[in-house]
Amino acid sequence: MSEIISTGLFDRAIRRITAVWREMAAGVASDEDDSIAGQMRACLAGRGGAVSARNRAAKLAETYLFLDDDGRVDFLRTLASFDSDADAVAAAVQVFQAATDEAARATAQMQLRRALEPPRLRLLTQFTAIPDGVKFLVDLRAFLMAHVRGDPRLAALESDLRGLLASWFDVGFLELCRITWDSPAALLEKLVGYEAVHEIRGWRDLKDRLDSDRRCYAFFHPRMPAEPLIFVEVALVEGLADSVQRLLDQKAPVLDPDDADAAIFYSISNCQRGLAGISFGNFLIKRVVDELSTEFRNLKTFATLSPVPGFRRWLDARVGEDADGLLTDDERTALHAAVPDAESGAGALIAILARRGWLRDPNLKKAAEPMLVRLCARYLLHEGNARRAADQVAHFHLSNGARIERLNPGADTSEKGLKESAGMMVNYLYDPARIEQYHEDYAGEGKRNASTAVRRLARG
Amino acid sequence: MSEIISTGLFDRAIRRITAVWREMAAGVASDEDDSIAGQMRACLAGRGGAVSARNRAAKLAETYLFLDDDGRVDFLRTLASFDSDADAVAAAVQVFQAATDEAARATAQMQLRRALEPPRLRLLTQFTAIPDGVKFLVDLRAFLMAHVRGDPRLAALESDLRGLLASWFDVGFLELCRITWDSPAALLEKLVGYEAVHEIRGWRDLKDRLDSDRRCYAFFHPRMPAEPLIFVEVALVEGLADSVQRLLDQKAPVLDPDDADAAIFYSISNCQRGLAGISFGNFLIKRVVDELSTEFRNLKTFATLSPVPGFRRWLDARVGEDADGLLTDDERTALHAAVPDAESGAGALIAILARRGWLRDPNLKKAAEPMLVRLCARYLLHEGNARRAADQVAHFHLSNGARIERLNPGADTSEKGLKESAGMMVNYLYDPARIEQYHEDYAGEGKRNASTAVRRLARG
Amino acid sequence: MSEIISTGLFDRAIRRITAVWREMAAGVASDEDDSIAGQMRACLAGRGGAVSARNRAAKLAETYLFLDDDGRVDFLRTLASFDSDADAVAAAVQVFQAATDEAARATAQMQLRRALEPPRLRLLTQFTAIPDGVKFLVDLRAFLMAHVRGDPRLAALESDLRGLLASWFDVGFLELCRITWDSPAALLEKLVGYEAVHEIRGWRDLKDRLDSDRRCYAFFHPRMPAEPLIFVEVALVEGLADSVQRLLDQKAPVLDPDDADAAIFYSISNCQRGLAGISFGNFLIKRVVDELSTEFRNLKTFATLSPVPGFRRWLDARVGEDADGLLTDDERTALHAAVPDAESGAGALIAILARRGWLRDPNLKKAAEPMLVRLCARYLLHEGNARRAADQVAHFHLSNGARIERLNPGADTSEKGLKESAGMMVNYLYDPARIEQYHEDYAGEGKRNASTAVRRLARG
Amino acid sequence: MSEIISTGLFDRAIRRITAVWREMAAGVASDEDDSIAGQMRACLAGRGGAVSARNRAAKLAETYLFLDDDGRVDFLRTLASFDSDADAVAAAVQVFQAATDEAARATAQMQLRRALEPPRLRLLTQFTAIPDGVKFLVDLRAFLMAHVRGDPRLAALESDLRGLLASWFDVGFLELCRITWDSPAALLEKLVGYEAVHEIRGWRDLKDRLDSDRRCYAFFHPRMPAEPLIFVEVALVEGLADSVQRLLDQKAPVLDPDDADAAIFYSISNCQRGLAGISFGNFLIKRVVDELSTEFRNLKTFATLSPVPGFRRWLDARVGEDADGLLTDDERTALHAAVPDAESGAGALIAILARRGWLRDPNLKKAAEPMLVRLCARYLLHEGNARRAADQVAHFHLSNGARIERLNPGADTSEKGLKESAGMMVNYLYDPARIEQYHEDYAGEGKRNASTAVRRLARG
Repeated sequence: MSEIISTGLFDRAIRRITAVWREMAAGVASDEDDSIAGQMRACLAGRGGAVSARNRAAKLAETYLFLDDDGRVDFLRTLASFDSDADAVAAAVQVFQAATDEAARATAQMQLRRALEPPRLRLLTQFTAIPDGVKFLVDLRAFLMAHVRGDPRLAALESDLRGLLASWFDVGFLELCRITWDSPAALLEKLVGYEAVHEIRGWRDLKDRLDSDRRCYAFFHPRMPAEPLIFVEVALVEGLADSVQRLLDQKAPVLDPDDADAAIFYSISNCQRGLAGISFGNFLIKRVVDELSTEFRNLKTFATLSPVPGFRRWLDARVGEDADGLLTDDERTALHAAVPDAESGAGALIAILARRGWLRDPNLKKAAEPMLVRLCARYLLHEGNARRAADQVAHFHLSNGARIERLNPGADTSEKGLKESAGMMVNYLYDPARIEQYHEDYAGEGKRNASTAVRRLARG
Repeated sequence: MSEIISTGLFDRAIRRITAVWREMAAGVASDEDDSIAGQMRACLAGRGGAVSARNRAAKLAETYLFLDDDGRVDFLRTLASFDSDADAVAAAVQVFQAATDEAARATAQMQLRRALEPPRLRLLTQFTAIPDGVKFLVDLRAFLMAHVRGDPRLAALESDLRGLLASWFDVGFLELCRITWDSPAALLEKLVGYEAVHEIRGWRDLKDRLDSDRRCYAFFHPRMPAEPLIFVEVALVEGLADSVQRLLDQKAPVLDPDDADAAIFYSISNCQRGLAGISFGNFLIKRVVDELSTEFRNLKTFATLSPVPGFRRWLDARVGEDADGLLTDDERTALHAAVPDAESGAGALIAILARRGWLRDPNLKKAAEPMLVRLCARYLLHEGNARRAADQVAHFHLSNGARIERLNPGADTSEKGLKESAGMMVNYLYDPARIEQYHEDYAGEGKRNASTAVRRLARG
Repeated sequence: MSEIISTGLFDRAIRRITAVWREMAAGVASDEDDSIAGQMRACLAGRGGAVSARNRAAKLAETYLFLDDDGRVDFLRTLASFDSDADAVAAAVQVFQAATDEAARATAQMQLRRALEPPRLRLLTQFTAIPDGVKFLVDLRAFLMAHVRGDPRLAALESDLRGLLASWFDVGFLELCRITWDSPAALLEKLVGYEAVHEIRGWRDLKDRLDSDRRCYAFFHPRMPAEPLIFVEVALVEGLADSVQRLLDQKAPVLDPDDADAAIFYSISNCQRGLAGISFGNFLIKRVVDELSTEFRNLKTFATLSPVPGFRRWLDARVGEDADGLLTDDERTALHAAVPDAESGAGALIAILARRGWLRDPNLKKAAEPMLVRLCARYLLHEGNARRAADQVAHFHLSNGARIERLNPGADTSEKGLKESAGMMVNYLYDPARIEQYHEDYAGEGKRNASTAVRRLARG
Repeated sequence: MSEIISTGLFDRAIRRITAVWREMAAGVASDEDDSIAGQMRACLAGRGGAVSARNRAAKLAETYLFLDDDGRVDFLRTLASFDSDADAVAAAVQVFQAATDEAARATAQMQLRRALEPPRLRLLTQFTAIPDGVKFLVDLRAFLMAHVRGDPRLAALESDLRGLLASWFDVGFLELCRITWDSPAALLEKLVGYEAVHEIRGWRDLKDRLDSDRRCYAFFHPRMPAEPLIFVEVALVEGLADSVQRLLDQKAPVLDPDDADAAIFYSISNCQRGLAGISFGNFLIKRVVDELSTEFRNLKTFATLSPVPGFRRWLDARVGEDADGLLTDDERTALHAAVPDAESGAGALIAILARRGWLRDPNLKKAAEPMLVRLCARYLLHEGNARRAADQVAHFHLSNGARIERLNPGADTSEKGLKESAGMMVNYLYDPARIEQYHEDYAGEGKRNASTAVRRLARG
């Protein structure tokens, strides 16, 4: 019975709260400046006490939700205008500049920091009082980021909000949850929407991805319980997986997960645009590796099956620049044989990649794949600069301490996979014993670790 | 983190239990009679202690699950053979017959009851030890009911099992839960399968039925937490609903449930064939009326929108028997005008009902509906006998203390609705203040309560 | 917030339910026979429908609770009078006696069973509808057992109720829960009341028994969530524990449970008198052994530290009968030396045991302990008959498949321990690999397994 | 079973995590500067990746816990030394000073803020990774506050930490929970320790305060689930309560809470010294008023029964200064009559208050009470300055929008009550309709609202 009572009454409670709050909001607005700026001033002055200030903030948040985009930009500009008091800052700066010894400097810095705390930050914090207030702020930042457009005051507001969210969404506050077919339908529906790597083609596909030889984990924040922040999909298999279509084949038999020796992370999706730049992907992978190795003692390999989303763009550009310099004589010969009417080897390669279904033509496949593998190895290991691999997915996994283990041509035959990655997928290997070393190698010296095979390919 | 740990480890625990149990099962089987009958004997003898007996019962249950239908029937016949000891019963009967005063008779009856407790009942109870043991027994009864086919021993076994389940599934042990879009996907998937009245046409339709102006409640048993026993779908609307297609229209706007004045129970489905004859429908309706009237103070009307599944079968039969006696002269005239080539008025009616899409033809609709309403009122109020209305849905609601409030021609235009109910749907009204009286009227004297309008129709 | 809403509203819901139910109860009573018997008849007739019958049953239950003991006995006699219909039973008996072949007998037995189902059983079942209805029935049986006093009708009612409770409290329906210092205070308060072996001397003592090197587990029924059925207290120690006072010493240091190699079950208490004869102790021990061996890989020994509650009674009786035949010459000599004025060796032993604080007198202790150990071994291994050891605790553990491992003189110096067990405690060893064999030995052939040392003692 | 598994396995998980973490911590320390400063540097450099940094921070936190007070102060000084980079701040200051228009200033301020973000703040945040990391930081601030002693660097660190905690403990993140006798014993034990107003004298007293006519609510933070932040104890009574001893009398009968018309808040205690200055008391009272008025429709009055902890100190000081000017002639006469040997009326008053048990002497009571009431009204309404009432409890409730409703002489006869408040207690009334106005009156103009009776007293 409790279930019902609480659910039924929860709805009622929400309605009651909403009603009370409308009244109060109406009340507070009646005898005073009810422009948005006036309301913000009243909030910051704490008029009527802290509880009233929260109610007034809630009304402001509701107002924001009813505005169109232009109205919202105005709203945010008004909000941004509640910046630190210029005179107070200038005074604190003078004290700071006058400080000579360390102790005085420490105090002056502290006071300068306080003088710089913008009032608008308190207003942002008060928005937590509304139902789903944290989600409101996350979405507000997403909107801000899309509308800053060089406005320095909006940029400053966005910077404040980013700091607030970074503090609240510290990984120490997040909860790792496993998502299964027993999870709420409303949550699963959201996963379908948030999946950014390999589209989920309906409930049947989704159920398959939550089968007994699959795992799905997500980070949640306690104040945004129905909203995943980031999630990862894992397949428990035998051996390193080399084809995402095989992984996602709904007709494939289900493996007893206790027999699996490899866990393949085949999809990682961030869900909240408003949390951009606040990173939890590396923690997610680490935590999931821990969970899985506790649950399945036979797992020996933890690796991804990842796209190379920058590969074809790079390839096209290089071919444009450098024509045939990219290819060996043998490769050129092979390509000419496969596409006799091409003007150059590189042109033949581009022509093949542009052809629909080229992977199903054995001649084209045989001609193109060896050099795609070689070029992709080179792209992953040598392109970009000392601080960043050119490919963003490679950069993410190398930063996390993974190494480039194996290239899989023809591993993603979806339209998107062919268009961005020329069908190539990469296994990034997470070796728990070496993660730290590999991270240091990459973050410190820009060294990209890879298996012997991949290194040899990149040289060849 | 607890979420993960418990889910992950739950899986492991299940596997561990399974493994241990296989070993033990293997162990117990090795040095003894491992025929099914031998195993059953060992269980009943409690060989190795009560815990071992449970393990052995679990192995028997697993064996049963691997058998085909014939094997299962054999298994159940063997199980049924563990009946009461004939000599002990005969002896107890003699004592009973010799008892002369009330006290002696009470004791003798008690002892006769004990002598009649069949050993197989203990075995059935021991099956609860397996995971999902209660569901196992519910399904076992469903199988039994389908395969008794006049075998008196199987019938006796089924009777024992029914008694056991009736005791466990007493309504005092059930939990009423509201089902929402936040319920586990696995549970919602089951609803789709169990819906017996108005087919759910996919996840979109389902989500619609769980919207804010809809309610869905189900009874659950604490030992079958993932399995609904019975569920009801309710629409919160303004006024008595008169069309199920309008209720289920996915494009219809959503009403603020606080504005609703009527709760329409438009679908009640039993989910477990193995619980046939163990009734909770009336409790479900009563409990849901209580919940809704607590949650929504504006609700004034609680009613169903129900099919009349026996109506067309009765109509066809009556037309066959009695030809035109069923219709008034005016009705016959009207029907002839609409279907000039029909041999009789009744024949015209049958011809109209048999025509695809007749409800969309204004002439046919106008000709047929008045008499359909009249005949349906008569069918509901007068057909059957003093103990049961001919229509099973009518019998269910009248037994629960509802009254027949309104007939809605053309209210269910689905194929099934036309075929069984000639498109007719009935509002049964549950008036909390009169439920008991109406129940007594029907259960005691066979009186079927109805609104003045319906009673007039039935007379007309 | 949900916490509050649900708790606060739960209280309100209970109050609402109670109010509604009083009204209804008042309503149903107004126009009809409102004697207890009349109400019972109305319940059984299902007057007003099944829901009303439940409400009426709830009113009867409330009436019962307000009665004094005599009133309750009358109430129960009235209830018992709703026995099976004598004529229907007689008729079914005739059919049964006329049945000649197996099939006819199966059917006749089934019908006889049905005829013998007493209407009062339905009434008992309906009591589940009240809040805490299951606890109500458990307590009702406790009352019945205490007041049957040879009344055969009450005995028959008690037998029905016992069957009902045995079905509901089947071990398959129970939940094993660990009880910790984080459990509800209301539950812990109950433990203090239910502890039957070693009294809990306040919250401080209780907290100590729930420390990190202690475990407490209980079985619960889902419909009696606040009421433990049976609980066991376990100490995680190094080596077989030989003193309960040392185990319960609040000043003793806490062991890191991962270093423990033995789990000592030092207290098992049944909590519900109304469930007497429905046994779950053996399941509890088995389940807890499983839990602990999963959690602590270093545990090698699972044993109890148990009293020998029948030992001194037996000893006194034997000394009365048989005087000195019980003792060896050496023992007699030693005893005479310790108690020079005793008339006989046996008399000296009894005198020692009767002396306050004899265990702290080194001379008395030295004189008495060796023969106490020998006699206790003999008592445990040889007294009683082939089906039951004389000592009830020994019988319980031997039935469960334990063996008598070690005797510990002076292991319980509490008043109760000295008075019943002469300070002796026994370690019964549960060896998971031999539990079944030992159970069979005892249950089948009456063989009591014991360690070599104990067997030698019993011979010596 | 899940209960056990998760509890048991949770312990194991913690142990495993601890072990893994020790190893890792050991690992990271091996090849590098393992001084505390070195470890802090490594954390901030993110050596080995973000996950390693967290592990390193956890090791630092553990180190801190093993240090004595001096060691901790050193540790915190080291931590404080990771301040903003002086050159970067100086540079940002220059840019800020050079900014002429608003846009440039906004950008410059934003960059100055960033330059001023001290690295130590990141380290503090990383401590959340340890189990109970939030509680660790709360306690760390409590330690800091007690040891700042004029050290400007520690003061700056404390200021940073305060900002962090204020952001995390925003009232929007807190959960209001009702505490009952069904709450975990471990939590209730903490309440006893945290109660700061009226000492809880054992479990019996505590149980009494959680009875059906009492309520206890607390705020919790989701990451400190076992630690209340602040709690309030409420009595549901008839009429304004005027004696705390009567409220806490364990022998008093329990009222049906539905009959209560007043909710008396008789104790509010802050639990976490480390959250000093981060206020939630006003939110707590507001939320509890909302909860109670939803649950009990009959409640008309919400008020406190509060001590006047500064009253006697003020009285003593005033008497010292001003001798008899405080009293009227009539009062002086009355006092002289009661204490003939006193040198002055004021001296007589002080003598009475100093006498043990004076409240039980009718003469003394009669002489002193009228003027105590008058003086207390004056103290509450007129002492202090325009921003703060002299009495801290008065200031708290006036700030929250309460008014001074009634003075109750002899309302707290405990030693503490007599020593601090001269036995006086005050009812502060919370009138939901006027809370905002009263708050504004006090916060804006320093106006202290009071009932006519109290105002008259203060004048008289």
